[in-house]
Amino acid sequence: MKIAIAQQNYHIGNFAGNTNKIIDAITEAKQKGAALIVFSELAICGYPPRDFLEFEDFIDQCQAALDKIKPHTAGIGVLIGAPDRNPSSKGKRLYNAAYFLHDGETRAVVYKTCLPTYDVFDEYRYFEPAHEWTLVDFQGKKLAVTLCEDIWNLGDNPLYTHCPMDQLIGQQPDIIINLSASPFDYTHVEDRKAIVKRNVLRYHIPLVYCNAVGSQTEIVFDGGSLVMDKHANLVAQLPLFKESLQLITWNEDGSFAEPALQTAAQLPDAELDPLRLEPDLCTAEIKDALVSGIRDYFKKMGFTKAILGSSGGIDSAVTQALAVEALGKENVMAVLLPSAYSSDHSVRDAELLSQRLGNAYEIISIQPVFESLLGVLKKSFGNRPSGLAEENLQSRSRGNILMGLANKFGYVLLNTSNKSELATGYGTLYGDMAGGLGVLGDCYKLQVYALARYINRHTELIPHSIICKPPSAELRPDQLDTDSLPPYEVLDHILYQYIEKRRSPAAIRQLGYEATLVDRVLSMVNTNEYKRNQFCPIIRISPKAFGVGRRMPIVGKYLS
Amino acid sequence: MKIAIAQQNYHIGNFAGNTNKIIDAITEAKQKGAALIVFSELAICGYPPRDFLEFEDFIDQCQAALDKIKPHTAGIGVLIGAPDRNPSSKGKRLYNAAYFLHDGETRAVVYKTCLPTYDVFDEYRYFEPAHEWTLVDFQGKKLAVTLCEDIWNLGDNPLYTHCPMDQLIGQQPDIIINLSASPFDYTHVEDRKAIVKRNVLRYHIPLVYCNAVGSQTEIVFDGGSLVMDKHANLVAQLPLFKESLQLITWNEDGSFAEPALQTAAQLPDAELDPLRLEPDLCTAEIKDALVSGIRDYFKKMGFTKAILGSSGGIDSAVTQALAVEALGKENVMAVLLPSAYSSDHSVRDAELLSQRLGNAYEIISIQPVFESLLGVLKKSFGNRPSGLAEENLQSRSRGNILMGLANKFGYVLLNTSNKSELATGYGTLYGDMAGGLGVLGDCYKLQVYALARYINRHTELIPHSIICKPPSAELRPDQLDTDSLPPYEVLDHILYQYIEKRRSPAAIRQLGYEATLVDRVLSMVNTNEYKRNQFCPIIRISPKAFGVGRRMPIVGKYLS
Repeated sequence: MKIAIAQQNYHIGNFAGNTNKIIDAITEAKQKGAALIVFSELAICGYPPRDFLEFEDFIDQCQAALDKIKPHTAGIGVLIGAPDRNPSSKGKRLYNAAYFLHDGETRAVVYKTCLPTYDVFDEYRYFEPAHEWTLVDFQGKKLAVTLCEDIWNLGDNPLYTHCPMDQLIGQQPDIIINLSASPFDYTHVEDRKAIVKRNVLRYHIPLVYCNAVGSQTEIVFDGGSLVMDKHANLVAQLPLFKESLQLITWNEDGSFAEPALQTAAQLPDAELDPLRLEPDLCTAEIKDALVSGIRDYFKKMGFTKAILGSSGGIDSAVTQALAVEALGKENVMAVLLPSAYSSDHSVRDAELLSQRLGNAYEIISIQPVFESLLGVLKKSFGNRPSGLAEENLQSRSRGNILMGLANKFGYVLLNTSNKSELATGYGTLYGDMAGGLGVLGDCYKLQVYALARYINRHTELIPHSIICKPPSAELRPDQLDTDSLPPYEVLDHILYQYIEKRRSPAAIRQLGYEATLVDRVLSMVNTNEYKRNQFCPIIRISPKAFGVGRRMPIVGKYLS
Repeated sequence: MKIAIAQQNYHIGNFAGNTNKIIDAITEAKQKGAALIVFSELAICGYPPRDFLEFEDFIDQCQAALDKIKPHTAGIGVLIGAPDRNPSSKGKRLYNAAYFLHDGETRAVVYKTCLPTYDVFDEYRYFEPAHEWTLVDFQGKKLAVTLCEDIWNLGDNPLYTHCPMDQLIGQQPDIIINLSASPFDYTHVEDRKAIVKRNVLRYHIPLVYCNAVGSQTEIVFDGGSLVMDKHANLVAQLPLFKESLQLITWNEDGSFAEPALQTAAQLPDAELDPLRLEPDLCTAEIKDALVSGIRDYFKKMGFTKAILGSSGGIDSAVTQALAVEALGKENVMAVLLPSAYSSDHSVRDAELLSQRLGNAYEIISIQPVFESLLGVLKKSFGNRPSGLAEENLQSRSRGNILMGLANKFGYVLLNTSNKSELATGYGTLYGDMAGGLGVLGDCYKLQVYALARYINRHTELIPHSIICKPPSAELRPDQLDTDSLPPYEVLDHILYQYIEKRRSPAAIRQLGYEATLVDRVLSMVNTNEYKRNQFCPIIRISPKAFGVGRRMPIVGKYLS
């Protein structure tokens, strides 16, 4: 039996676009002789549809899209994700379902059991978990159809009280098919292989895993769909960060016609869980994820052109290089916004960067705007010494100029703040925190350096002087980040322990950091929720990004 | 048996403060002869603790707080909400629990069954639902202890597959005790009485309902704890929006010593669910909720002083009046920020308002800042006609000046945008959308008018001319809101049908609105998610506020 895996990039709520894409894949799979085609979770509407699921009309449109697809299922079995209404009067109103369509009819509907409700996931907000489990019969084979998280609930400490495969295995399935929408983070590419391997070795049947690809605002789906035989040999792997349709041949004896790409012994056994931040971990994949995040944000929002403030520092340099890769140099405008405190080398470095990347740039001094602000505020400010308020005025002058250009010419402003700054509140609301998309907001400063080195791996695109100068906001004479923050080599590791690993102050101190430093850093994190709450969406590359996946009280008093 | 109900205002994560407050109430209740005292849900840490619950250290601190309270429980039973670790290796790591403490020991721990995971609630993100149900024995009585949502799961269409009281009633309890953290919205005060009544009439035993009070960022807990006898007579009702400790006497025969405040016949049977927006509904309670929201935000964040832009329009006038009530006139600074397009009467009206309210005010012309921005952008803008970009520059000049003052003097900037504007994107990011707290962001424009009339019920605090002038942003000559938006009498009703009622375009058209108008309004709502995503927390007064309780895709294509 030939099985096609359709790894596609959907647009949430764009039913016409998604349906056409799905029908195209079915048509192509049929032409190539597939008996069965597998799509990803909630492919019909795109994942995550969030509170659109609460609109009856949205569910009607999902059902209408399925009806449009049905006539194309003559002679081919189609497994596709869509929400289904709960036929019972009890429980949540919907199920997260896999529809099995064949010869124009719905032959089976399978419900998801394990509903991720943590980090960026809110599935129990909408869906009732499955309470019963049945295989799908197709051409003499028994398919154990599961949805994403359904195959992740193994181990000694399962997050859910039911494991659907433990229920299904007694019915003697021939294969596990998993429809996923499983997002990228830098631990996840290996994790995914490990978890598929664990399932195959536990249930002794092959597994076909179909993942979504493409970015949905902050969440990047990386694809990487795969097929493993019952011995945990990898027999197919679809590309990362790219749409792809691939066929495999499942033999009558349960093996695959394709030779193994990797054997069980070459594949990871356990999920990756670094105890410490490894800034160089998966830099290539992180770069691809960020490029995908920028590209799809613009494409799906209907924008083409980006603008950003180019300071001559490393964060804006990396953001600019990524934007040029994602959107093309002709679609990126860099604006150099020097003040009296900007160093000459910053302006020179920023110009050189734009020249090397080939994008347009402008230089606009913020000094007249800053001075006019000081002027109108002079009476109120009186003789008080210059301080943070004046620094913020400069930063907001920049934000104001950038937004003026964005509004006038239809640019989207890219934000260049990194995760270390956002964590500690080292940024100005409506100033350098302005923008429509946070490109580096999930990358610690040390990871930004790793990205810069990676971007320069073939040629020096980012001038060396940008990478090696000491970080500075340049909002007062001779200012350095280290005036306000610990060195990033220390800061990032403490932040990682607190944010990603959720360790206690005591546990972080035990790793060798001074108590007052740990307390100061954690307090900075917790007292700056109010700032991050107003920040734009951040492209997520870690297991714990700021934004929708990290929900902290703004008004609280814990470690603060 | 004397039962004390402790309706208290907690501070999330402030274990020292919360614990002291709890011990004080226990001491007072003992002095007054109470045998039992009831606190609200998650009283130990404050509700909602959100992702703090994912930190082991936070849970340890909850347990440590319980240990501090135990010595004070000699001779008194204490029912109090706190998270508990799940002793099983399966399922979520925590339970949302009610601890029953007595004579220095934990006598029982009851787990919550119905975990609200919708709107502003995320309980299944953290908690495993109860899988078994037992009564608590105390002084010869059997207590059916439930937590908040546990008593809301009645009716023909229950949201949860288990109803804990249906499980417990067979064990013949003498009374239902409910520990809640149930927030205010303008439908909820009556709903709550209706649901308590339904429980009492269904199970034929009395019910003691203890709710939290006070605001937690955007969520306002309104208290209104109550006691109903088994005939559904209301025998106690604690005040709204105030802390209170009240004792009732539960007789041996199951009746109460206190006379009924209202009889069953006087109480609502069904929950309130208006089909259309009623702008005057519960205006007094909405006003109290907004004042509570402002006051607690400042108190719990450690701020005292507010600043706001006073435009001479109704939104800033109502915000200013509420701020003066919440914080005191000495803690409110109004800044009048006229431009060339500001009408004389706007400035006069705004001055008059501050004079009547008695708060300080300043007048700062934005013209020099606006002109300096036009100056530095002149080369880039070229000869393009003036438009939205220039309007936004004015709005952001105001935002910049206000934030400058806020940073210099330690004010929090109050945002004055209303729900109609936020819904349609009729506002400028980093301009009039700036601020730390959105006071009116959950009030449609028609509700803002109702608030203004209510504020003026005794004296004309808000000048009549502010209320009766046609709404305008005053960003170009003779501009009116109706240039860009339908009249609020139409707009607000369409928005309400879509946002609160989640109706389809077809259903809204059937209410008598033109198809193109409906489509245009819904498209404005859906294409402006990106703006609202960067908005500050909004004090929630409706069943569906923008912010944490409404989670829409930013990049999507549905009705847009």
